[in-house]
Amino acid sequence: MNAFSLGVSDKDARVGTLTTAHGKIKTPFFMPVATKGSVKLVSMEELRSIGIEAFISNSYVFSLRPGLDVVKKAGGLHKFVGWDRGIFTDSGGFQVIRPEFFQKIDDRGVTFRNPFDQALDVLTPEKAMVIQNRLKSDVAMCLDDMPLPGSSIARLTESMHRTFEWGKRCLDAHENKRQLLFGIAQGGTNAKLRKKSAELMNSLPFDGLALGGLAIGEPSHWVEKMVPIDTKEMDPEKMRYLMGVGTPEQLVMAVSLGVDCFDSAFPTQTGRHGLAFTRKGRINLANRSHRFDLSPIDSECACFVCESHSRAYVHHLFRTGEENGMKYLSFHNLFFIQHLMTRIREEIESGSFSRFRQRLKWK
Amino acid sequence: MNAFSLGVSDKDARVGTLTTAHGKIKTPFFMPVATKGSVKLVSMEELRSIGIEAFISNSYVFSLRPGLDVVKKAGGLHKFVGWDRGIFTDSGGFQVIRPEFFQKIDDRGVTFRNPFDQALDVLTPEKAMVIQNRLKSDVAMCLDDMPLPGSSIARLTESMHRTFEWGKRCLDAHENKRQLLFGIAQGGTNAKLRKKSAELMNSLPFDGLALGGLAIGEPSHWVEKMVPIDTKEMDPEKMRYLMGVGTPEQLVMAVSLGVDCFDSAFPTQTGRHGLAFTRKGRINLANRSHRFDLSPIDSECACFVCESHSRAYVHHLFRTGEENGMKYLSFHNLFFIQHLMTRIREEIESGSFSRFRQRLKWK
Repeated sequence: MNAFSLGVSDKDARVGTLTTAHGKIKTPFFMPVATKGSVKLVSMEELRSIGIEAFISNSYVFSLRPGLDVVKKAGGLHKFVGWDRGIFTDSGGFQVIRPEFFQKIDDRGVTFRNPFDQALDVLTPEKAMVIQNRLKSDVAMCLDDMPLPGSSIARLTESMHRTFEWGKRCLDAHENKRQLLFGIAQGGTNAKLRKKSAELMNSLPFDGLALGGLAIGEPSHWVEKMVPIDTKEMDPEKMRYLMGVGTPEQLVMAVSLGVDCFDSAFPTQTGRHGLAFTRKGRINLANRSHRFDLSPIDSECACFVCESHSRAYVHHLFRTGEENGMKYLSFHNLFFIQHLMTRIREEIESGSFSRFRQRLKWK
Repeated sequence: MNAFSLGVSDKDARVGTLTTAHGKIKTPFFMPVATKGSVKLVSMEELRSIGIEAFISNSYVFSLRPGLDVVKKAGGLHKFVGWDRGIFTDSGGFQVIRPEFFQKIDDRGVTFRNPFDQALDVLTPEKAMVIQNRLKSDVAMCLDDMPLPGSSIARLTESMHRTFEWGKRCLDAHENKRQLLFGIAQGGTNAKLRKKSAELMNSLPFDGLALGGLAIGEPSHWVEKMVPIDTKEMDPEKMRYLMGVGTPEQLVMAVSLGVDCFDSAFPTQTGRHGLAFTRKGRINLANRSHRFDLSPIDSECACFVCESHSRAYVHHLFRTGEENGMKYLSFHNLFFIQHLMTRIREEIESGSFSRFRQRLKWK
């Protein structure tokens, strides 16, 4: 049975439903990042109150700490972290972006230096599957070979072929039938290689497909250029997940190009630095210009921060080093994105998404 | 009209009601500390959900940052911080405990070095009243001369007389009739001087009386010895507030000696260091012994942390440096104390407080 069922479309934008072992999730949707099983400064209780349906954790990091033994004892990742909605797990391939962690990559797998005890460890596609199968996440991601921005054509080509080969190995090794498995298309920002990679990954029997290696440091207009190349090659009946996106603007843009799912640490990360999303663009509450500003962060936002607190108060918290400032903006930004995704689905369903998109005025 | 109305007693333990400009508070009650208008890592929304009825902020710190101008523009401290229940404000006298801040004390007032711009500033009793009147807190505290632990008899005597003189000056300068004013008894750990100080402060027409200068570093059994000396001198019709207490054990002990109100940063401060209150005593969740412990922090606790998360998960958060570990324990510890205070009131009302106290088995 197909895990994804496609609903109505508005041009390329589409709504649908992903069925996981922990319930159905309406698409398009956004996932906060909980690398170690915790969204920074936002409690599980608060995630539930916002209406978050899933987050993404890093399975490789989890296999190191706390370790698979305690997660197994708890009965899986959901029970260990205390979350009964969706959990996606990344394989760990994305950690190549952290130079203190990544050592080398070859056909066998990715060699990491364990940051906790400095030991070398090879993460193979098979091992990535064993880890994720045991964590019992709802959606496992294939181990991929992600090229960094600025890679040569030779490197992009190698990564594309290796990601395809690893995709096949992951499919072979994947044993947990209650867990969905998604492949990841690469190709960097090379149109020809992205098309080829998307075509190759689409040819394998994955439950869904991700667009990888974007939004990792290359100029942001490349995301807009590359996404339609990928989606065009992908079976419309499969869910499409753009990894690492992102900003409110990028979410709306990518939905218009046919993407169904997103994850990014951006809302919470920027929140910790004082940035707040508003319907008129981002504002920096660490800035002194907000010292006497008694208006809410966003007058249309219904989150508890906007309902109870002013910009001046949040500014005061940042200015005096009170962590609640970071906490409030992490919450507000996630609430803002969640509300945006709900609105996006409603607009697609009523056939007014294109008009909605045109009316948006980000600063 | 008396702001405090005394209810039933069980030996020296008593219930009552404090009427403030922001509603009635049942006593005995506990206040978390929000020095800068924010309880560390616990949101106002979470304080409300726990049932917290009041917290205490530092008026002098507020007068420096964000400054009285913006609080005035907001319409007072409640509106500025987004809290519609009780707010007590300390005068700033307690900041003599911070050597980087405190410079000297004489009959005029306390000289501080402004930690933000290094300028010298004299906080007089009159100024402490003007600041608190303008902040519009529900309860203002007198400026007192608090002796540090280990002070000589001469110093304790000086502090006692000065605190009495300042108390009279505060009463004269206090203009906000919707704000209650509490005096503070000092005397260190000298029985004779504590008795005299309590007697002197009790002779002035305050709305309530605080027991000051305890729980600031002296051995904890002194609290138990000194409290009854103070309460014996105090008019039973006035609310008694033991500043800086404290631990679950001390709260129960002090209630048994006739105290009605408490504040302490202890529950949140220890929570940030991994300590969790339980009905069987404190446990340290940063400790490796909890790595595989899938039981809740306290199996009888109904807080969301205990309902959704295990000791092993909270340990994992501390071990991997996720701030949510600190956040969860701050919340749990406050919830625990709030539940304890509710239980204490019920036991006093049903005449079973002494038995309840005997049955408690702290580790």
